[in-house]
Amino acid sequence: MSATVHRLTPTGRVKDPSLDPMMTLVAEDMAAVNAVIVDRMQSRIPLIPELAGHLISGGGKRLRPMLTLASGQLLGYHGTRHHLLAAAVEFIHTATLLHDDVVDGSDLRRGKRTANIIWGNPASVLVGDFLFSRSFELMVEADSLAALKILSNASAVIAEGEVNQLTAVRRVDLHEDRYLDIIGAKTAALFAAACRIAAVVADRPQAEELALDAYGRNLGIAFQLVDDAIDYVSDASTMGKDAGDDFREGKMTLPVILAYARGDEAARGFWRDAVSGRRATDADFAHAVELVRSSRAVEDTMARARHYGQRAIESLSGFADGAAKDAMVEAVEFAVARAY
Amino acid sequence: MSATVHRLTPTGRVKDPSLDPMMTLVAEDMAAVNAVIVDRMQSRIPLIPELAGHLISGGGKRLRPMLTLASGQLLGYHGTRHHLLAAAVEFIHTATLLHDDVVDGSDLRRGKRTANIIWGNPASVLVGDFLFSRSFELMVEADSLAALKILSNASAVIAEGEVNQLTAVRRVDLHEDRYLDIIGAKTAALFAAACRIAAVVADRPQAEELALDAYGRNLGIAFQLVDDAIDYVSDASTMGKDAGDDFREGKMTLPVILAYARGDEAARGFWRDAVSGRRATDADFAHAVELVRSSRAVEDTMARARHYGQRAIESLSGFADGAAKDAMVEAVEFAVARAY
Repeated sequence: MSATVHRLTPTGRVKDPSLDPMMTLVAEDMAAVNAVIVDRMQSRIPLIPELAGHLISGGGKRLRPMLTLASGQLLGYHGTRHHLLAAAVEFIHTATLLHDDVVDGSDLRRGKRTANIIWGNPASVLVGDFLFSRSFELMVEADSLAALKILSNASAVIAEGEVNQLTAVRRVDLHEDRYLDIIGAKTAALFAAACRIAAVVADRPQAEELALDAYGRNLGIAFQLVDDAIDYVSDASTMGKDAGDDFREGKMTLPVILAYARGDEAARGFWRDAVSGRRATDADFAHAVELVRSSRAVEDTMARARHYGQRAIESLSGFADGAAKDAMVEAVEFAVARAY
Repeated sequence: MSATVHRLTPTGRVKDPSLDPMMTLVAEDMAAVNAVIVDRMQSRIPLIPELAGHLISGGGKRLRPMLTLASGQLLGYHGTRHHLLAAAVEFIHTATLLHDDVVDGSDLRRGKRTANIIWGNPASVLVGDFLFSRSFELMVEADSLAALKILSNASAVIAEGEVNQLTAVRRVDLHEDRYLDIIGAKTAALFAAACRIAAVVADRPQAEELALDAYGRNLGIAFQLVDDAIDYVSDASTMGKDAGDDFREGKMTLPVILAYARGDEAARGFWRDAVSGRRATDADFAHAVELVRSSRAVEDTMARARHYGQRAIESLSGFADGAAKDAMVEAVEFAVARAY
């Protein structure tokens, strides 16, 4: 094990960080995982593969299973047991997206109409349940109770985080700590588990399990912070989700928490109205973007993201240098550079 | 093992069959299971135990975990590993109910307002997801990959059955075979798994596993047939669910399938209109009840239920006579006698 600590490239100096190195690194493994995914989303009930395929074939990056595979490479694991687990991770994620879109009443994801808009809420709920069940069938096949423990716990934490977020919606006084708690659960828990299970399957010491858990968790938090910042960047129309969705749903994300805390009386009054749902026009959203910009709330959300990104990178310091580590570092740089 | 085959008591001769013998049989085990259920529905997010408790403390019979425990007694198993699994079975069932009520837009269950009416669809979806995840955490703790395999498969089959039912709704030409396929999946699969896992935990030969699976599966089908008949029995107001719910939702259950098949042109026209949603008043429902009654569709649905009930009882023939077997036979008699 080497002890190289990579540093996050200061903003603006990095030249187009991307997921390409990670995709190249795991290409062969990912082909096997994709085959599992396509095979196991089938059902004799035609609506299931039709609806699931809409999302699964819908241009997602498959970042979470990619992390399982990259972690396996980092550990020099050359087996295939993590293929089933990586597919299970993607199914958990897909089930969560289907239910999220029902919960949020979303109509657009990755630039396409959401499944709940096309097939209705009932179908989205039930196909989500199917994929969730199927993910546990895959875990059972992978034959590791330790991995099952990690992923079943992550699933419960995700659901808890989603309920926590639901009860925090339209509460302008939400504290940053609770926000971090929510994104740690609803997003970062699955990133952490996705990485950690590679060490379990590869039968590595607990220290490496925990290091990979920390990498995934910090990357997940950074990823969600950037996602939440993007909703308040004015050219978000290119992001494939509706700009201003969080705003119109009254979701208290960090840009809003910071802009509210830093606002004058007029700004705070605006946020109170907006978060409670009384200001939801395009002009209101434009005003919100302006308040977020002028209070430097996006910059500071991004600074927080870089903080967690740096921690993710440092979690890898104990692992040997090489292509896998380089790809995992660049994935962090990619995650925190997305808004620029 | 004895070879006594019990016969279902002919309708009307049995004197008040009940679940009491089974409840008495498993009382001690059930106290332990209830403690697990109450302990594991807790969460630091207050809405979770609040919403879950509404349903879990809401007067349900806990029939499914009771079947796991009774099956354990039948096998002479005196351990406690099936307590965690029985709680997991109840959590799967509760999660399914929460999602079902969202899917059906139900407003009443067991005589109480449904969770989706009180807390909204998003909370019901997410707390269902939490209970589902928690059920898998319990299974992992029970430390049996074989039981996990049975229950994860049952969960996928349930979700498949629910989607199948969703795509069959408002289709007046639904065939009885597809209806049986649907209830076999959405209801009977969990009954079967609940019984079967007792044999797994007790480490019994596969023949006993399969016999218990058959008992649960046939009981589950009988149970659902009776449930579907009850919706068309005119004094259903005492049942704690809205009489006519299935009718108004356009659900093709066996009483409707039979009444439609046996109807004259006027009756068939009525059913086509009703199933497609164009006749949903109280007067329409009263007419539907009359058509079901005059075509003997309820009697024949109940006769089908007795057929499956008899098969459930025969599945027990290889097990030793005694209090456990008597209680499991009487549970079948109770299930098929409910409508009278």
